[in-house]
Amino acid sequence: MIESVRPQVDGGRYPIKRALGDEVLVEADVFTDGHDAVVAELLFKHSEEKAWHSIPMEFRHNDHWAAAFRVEKLGRYQYTVRGWTDPFRTWQRDLVKRHEAGQDLTVDLQIGAELLGAEIADYESAIDLAPPPPREEWVVSFEKSLEVVVDPVRARFSSWYEMFPRSFGGLRGVLEVLPYVERLGFNVLYLPPVHPVGVSARKGKNNAIACKPGDVGSPWAIGSKEGGHKALNPELGTFDDFHALVRAAEKREIQIALDIAFQCSPDHPYVKEHPEWFRARPDGTIQYAENPPKKYQDIYPFDFETPAWQSLWEELKSVFEFWVGHGVTIFRVDNPHTKAFAFWEWAIADLKRKHPELIFLAEAFTRPRVMHKLAKLGFTQSYTYFTWRNTKHELTEYFTELATEPSREYFRPNFWPNTPDILHETLQHGGRPAFIVRAVLAATAAANYGMYGPAYELQERTPREPGSEEYLNSEKYELKRWDLERADSLAPMITRLNTLRRENAALQSDWSLQFHPVDNSQLIAYSKKAGDNEILVVVNLDVHHPQSGWIDFAPCEVHDLLSGGHYRWTKPRNYIELSPHKLPAHVFKVTRT
Amino acid sequence: MIESVRPQVDGGRYPIKRALGDEVLVEADVFTDGHDAVVAELLFKHSEEKAWHSIPMEFRHNDHWAAAFRVEKLGRYQYTVRGWTDPFRTWQRDLVKRHEAGQDLTVDLQIGAELLGAEIADYESAIDLAPPPPREEWVVSFEKSLEVVVDPVRARFSSWYEMFPRSFGGLRGVLEVLPYVERLGFNVLYLPPVHPVGVSARKGKNNAIACKPGDVGSPWAIGSKEGGHKALNPELGTFDDFHALVRAAEKREIQIALDIAFQCSPDHPYVKEHPEWFRARPDGTIQYAENPPKKYQDIYPFDFETPAWQSLWEELKSVFEFWVGHGVTIFRVDNPHTKAFAFWEWAIADLKRKHPELIFLAEAFTRPRVMHKLAKLGFTQSYTYFTWRNTKHELTEYFTELATEPSREYFRPNFWPNTPDILHETLQHGGRPAFIVRAVLAATAAANYGMYGPAYELQERTPREPGSEEYLNSEKYELKRWDLERADSLAPMITRLNTLRRENAALQSDWSLQFHPVDNSQLIAYSKKAGDNEILVVVNLDVHHPQSGWIDFAPCEVHDLLSGGHYRWTKPRNYIELSPHKLPAHVFKVTRT
Repeated sequence: MIESVRPQVDGGRYPIKRALGDEVLVEADVFTDGHDAVVAELLFKHSEEKAWHSIPMEFRHNDHWAAAFRVEKLGRYQYTVRGWTDPFRTWQRDLVKRHEAGQDLTVDLQIGAELLGAEIADYESAIDLAPPPPREEWVVSFEKSLEVVVDPVRARFSSWYEMFPRSFGGLRGVLEVLPYVERLGFNVLYLPPVHPVGVSARKGKNNAIACKPGDVGSPWAIGSKEGGHKALNPELGTFDDFHALVRAAEKREIQIALDIAFQCSPDHPYVKEHPEWFRARPDGTIQYAENPPKKYQDIYPFDFETPAWQSLWEELKSVFEFWVGHGVTIFRVDNPHTKAFAFWEWAIADLKRKHPELIFLAEAFTRPRVMHKLAKLGFTQSYTYFTWRNTKHELTEYFTELATEPSREYFRPNFWPNTPDILHETLQHGGRPAFIVRAVLAATAAANYGMYGPAYELQERTPREPGSEEYLNSEKYELKRWDLERADSLAPMITRLNTLRRENAALQSDWSLQFHPVDNSQLIAYSKKAGDNEILVVVNLDVHHPQSGWIDFAPCEVHDLLSGGHYRWTKPRNYIELSPHKLPAHVFKVTRT
Repeated sequence: MIESVRPQVDGGRYPIKRALGDEVLVEADVFTDGHDAVVAELLFKHSEEKAWHSIPMEFRHNDHWAAAFRVEKLGRYQYTVRGWTDPFRTWQRDLVKRHEAGQDLTVDLQIGAELLGAEIADYESAIDLAPPPPREEWVVSFEKSLEVVVDPVRARFSSWYEMFPRSFGGLRGVLEVLPYVERLGFNVLYLPPVHPVGVSARKGKNNAIACKPGDVGSPWAIGSKEGGHKALNPELGTFDDFHALVRAAEKREIQIALDIAFQCSPDHPYVKEHPEWFRARPDGTIQYAENPPKKYQDIYPFDFETPAWQSLWEELKSVFEFWVGHGVTIFRVDNPHTKAFAFWEWAIADLKRKHPELIFLAEAFTRPRVMHKLAKLGFTQSYTYFTWRNTKHELTEYFTELATEPSREYFRPNFWPNTPDILHETLQHGGRPAFIVRAVLAATAAANYGMYGPAYELQERTPREPGSEEYLNSEKYELKRWDLERADSLAPMITRLNTLRRENAALQSDWSLQFHPVDNSQLIAYSKKAGDNEILVVVNLDVHHPQSGWIDFAPCEVHDLLSGGHYRWTKPRNYIELSPHKLPAHVFKVTRT
C-alpha cells in the first residue's frame, strides 16, 4: 500500500511549486499486510526526460518514508513513489533474529538459496548478500505521478517597486530614476498599464465622472485609436524607449514587470474590430462593467463565454506573447478573478511551456477560495490580505496559514503595505512609525514583497475622504511630482531592509517562519532560518507608545541589523523594549555558540 | 468549481460509513469566477435506485455550501454535488440592487425577458419569478460520486460480551446463561472459535508446549479429523444446539457473534485436501506460523499469495457464507492484518452486497496505518488502543482523534477494557476501582464496547507472570468454573451502565464527544449529546486516592445516574469530588432550563 504521497495539491489535480535549486521532500506511507520487509523508492524526472531517476526512501517511523530531490531545471518535474515487499530482505532480517536466538539455520539457508537462485555458504555470507532486484510483478506504484512547477528564483524571492511612468515623464524618465530604484534595493520594477488611454468617458481627477481638458485618465482604461494591449501610450515613449528601459534595468539586476488588465475603454480597437468579444445589451449598446448598482461606463469587460471565445482567448494569450517578445518576463495581472478560471489555467500552462521563466502575480483581492484557486491554476505569486492584517493575533494566524501546508505548496504570497488602490487606515493615522512597521513586517515576513512608491517612502497618507482606502489626488487619475530627496523620506530604511533581505538567506523563503511568545500583545516576534542563517524580528505594533516585554527565546547572541545594537541573551526569557519614536522594530541576526 | 466535497475518505477511494437512519451532512466549496449567482445541489441515491434525488444546498459562508440526506436502507448509497451559475438569478439579484439605487430598469427588464424567454411586466413581478431550470450545458458535476455504506444500527451502537462456551458446558450451557447475559444488558454475545480443536502440537495449560491428557487446547488451533472452519466442535454440541442458541438469543435481542480465525491446526482437513493453500519448506514440511525467532508449530497460516489463491479465497469467503446460513450476522475476525488486504476488500464487499446486515469486527492490534486501512477496506468496527490509553492526556488525545474527521468517517471504535489476551496492568494493580473506572470509560466514551467475561465482572486480575498481559491459568487453554453470583461481582454496575446506554441516545454514537476542563490531572470529564439528551461523565483516574477539582461546565442541573445524586450547578465552575473507595465516576444526565 502506497498512500498519502505528499507534497500534493488537491490529490494531484494541481502541481506544487518550487524555485530553481529548491528541494522537494517527498513523504509517503508505505506498508503491507503481514510482516514482510518493505522497500520504497522515490521516482522523479523532468518532463523532458524519458527515464525516471530513483532514490531509495528512508524509513522514518510508523510506516512513514521520506526522500528528497533537487529541482535543477525550469519547467515541470514529475515525481511518484513505488515500493514492494522483498522476500530476500525479509529472509535476511529474520535470519539475523534466528541466528541471535541460536536456532538451527540449515533449512533457512536453503530457503534463502531458493530466493536468491544461488548457493549460500553460511550465515556470515548470507547477511552480507545484496538483495536481488525486485521482480517486476512485485512492484506497486502510487496511483498517479505528481507534478512540480519549477520557477525562477525570483518567484520565491523578489522585491517589487511600483511606479507610474507618466509622473516621471514617461519611459525615459523611468530610465533616469533607475539608479534610485536600484539604491532602494528592489529587483522588480512594476509599471501600471503602459497602453494608450481611452478618451470616451475618461475619468477626471479623484475618479470624477467628467474629466477636464488635460486630465490624463486612468491607465487601466485601456485602448484608444492609437492602439490597445499591444501598443505603447505615445505619451510614455516609443518601443525603442521601452527596450532601452528593459536593458538598462537588466544591467542593474532589475526586471521590468508589466500590468496586464484585460478590459477595454470604449475606444479600444477591439471594440470595433471584434464586437463578438463583448456582450451586447438589448438596446444595441455594449455591456459596460458593473458591480450593481455601480456602473463603470468607461470600461468594457470581455465576454469570456462568448461563442467566439476561442479567438478571444487566443488573442488575450498573444498579448503576453507580444510583451515577452519585448523582453518582459514578469506580469502583474489585474483582477484575474473576474475572468474565466479555465482561461488562466490554459493560458499560463501554455505560456510557461514555451517560457518557463515567466512569473505571473495575481491581483485577486477576493474571497479566499477564489484567491487560492487562481494560485492552483497557475499564478506564480499572489497578492494577499496582508494589508488588512494588523493586530498580533491577525498577523500570527495569517502568516502561519501561509507558511504551512497545504497553502505554501501552491500559494506564494507577495506582501504589499500599500498599492495605488489601498491606503490602509493604519497608514492614514499611524504616521511615520506605521510606515516603518508595515515595511518591516512585509519585508521580513514575506520573501516576496512590494510597495507602491514613491508614495510609500514619502509617506503619502491622505485618504480621498474619511473611511476611504483611496488616496486623495490619486496618481491613478493625475500626474504627480515626487520629491525623491525629501529629508523625511523612508528611502534609507527601505534600502536597509532590502540589503538585509539580499544578505540573509533566511529572509529569502517563507517556510521556516516560527513565532515566539512575547508577554505583550503589542509586541510580535518571529524568526526565519536557512542553514546557519537565522533572523529574529521583533516589532512594536503600537505606533503611538513604547512597549516592552519578555520574549521566550533560547540563549544566543543577537545583533540588530537595523540599529547596530548587540546583545548577549543568557536566559530563556529576554527583555525587549521598542519605541515608535525611535525604531519600532528589531531585525536581529542570531548567533548560537 | 466544485471542490472539497465531504465527507470523503482518501479522495473517495473508500466509502464512508453510516448506520440505518443516520444523516449524511454533505459539504462542498462551490464557486465561480466573476460575480454570477451560483446554485448548488446535493444528489444522492441508493445503489439499487436508477434516478438521483436532488436537494438544494444551503449557502453557509465564504463559498461553502451544505445539505443533508438520511440513509433509510441498508447497503450503499452514492452522493455527489452539482452546481451552475444561473444568469436569471444573477439578473434578479442585481435587479434588486438597481431598484434600490433608484435606477431606470427599462433595459434591464428587457434583458430579463430574454433570459426568461417571456415578457416581464415590471419590477414587482420580476422579483417573484421562479428561475427557469438550468440548461444542461451549464451544469457542472463534482468529478466523482462518493459512497456511503449503510450498516445496521448495531454497527454504531453495540455492547459485546465474550465468553468461552466450553467453560459453561458447551452451547446448551451458554443457552442457560443467556438470562444472565441479558440481565447484564449486552446485545452481542461473542464466542471464540467453535470449531474442532487440533490435537497435534496442542498447547497445554498456560500455553505449555507439551499438553497433558485432558487438556482442551486453544480454540484458535482450528481443525481436527472432526472438521474445520465449517464444523462445530462436538464437545460444544450439535448444529441443533447452535440453532437453538441463536434463536433463544434473538428472543432476548442478543445476537451471536462468531470468531473467524483463518489459520489451521496441523490436523485441519484443508492440510491434506489442499496442500497448495499452504507454503512448503525446502524439507517438504509445511511452513508453520512464525514471528522470528518465535515459532508456533501448532498453527499453519494460509498462503494468501499461493498460485492457488483464487480457490483459497473463495473457500475462505464461503466460511462466512456458511455461518450466515446458520443465522450468524456478526463476525469478530482474528488478526486480519496478517492476511491479504485485497482479500478483505473483495470478500467483505461481496458478502455485504448479498448480506448488507453483516457486521465485521477487526481484531487488528497493530500499527495505526494498518489498523485504519482495514477499516477503510470494509471492516464495520475495529478494536482499538483503548486498553493502553490510561492517563487523562492519553485518553483525551485518543478519544478526540477517534471522534473527529477523518477517522470517524470510516473507523468505528469498539472499546474493550480486557480480552482473553489482554489483562492490562491497570487492572492487575488497580483493584475493584480500576475495573469500575475502565468499564465506565469504555461504556460511556464509545458507543461500541465489549468485555471478556465473567473474568471482567469477577475482576480476574492475576497475570501469568509479572510484566505479562496474559492471564494466569488463561481460559484460552483450560476450562474455568465461574461463580456468577459472587457477592463482589461487578454485574450490578455493568447492568447499570448498559441500562444507561440503552436509555440515553447520547451514549449511542461517538461524534458529539466533547472534553471539559477540570483543574486536576486525575479527573477527566467529557460529555455527549443527542438532541435534548446530554450526558456528562466525570471519572477519577486515580484508583488509590480521592481526588477533587473544579470543572468548567455551563450552569445546569445534573443528576447522577450511577449514585442517584442531584446537583444544581449555578456557576460556570463547579466542584467535583470522587473517591475510588466509593464510586470513582459520575455519569450525569444534564438538564438545562
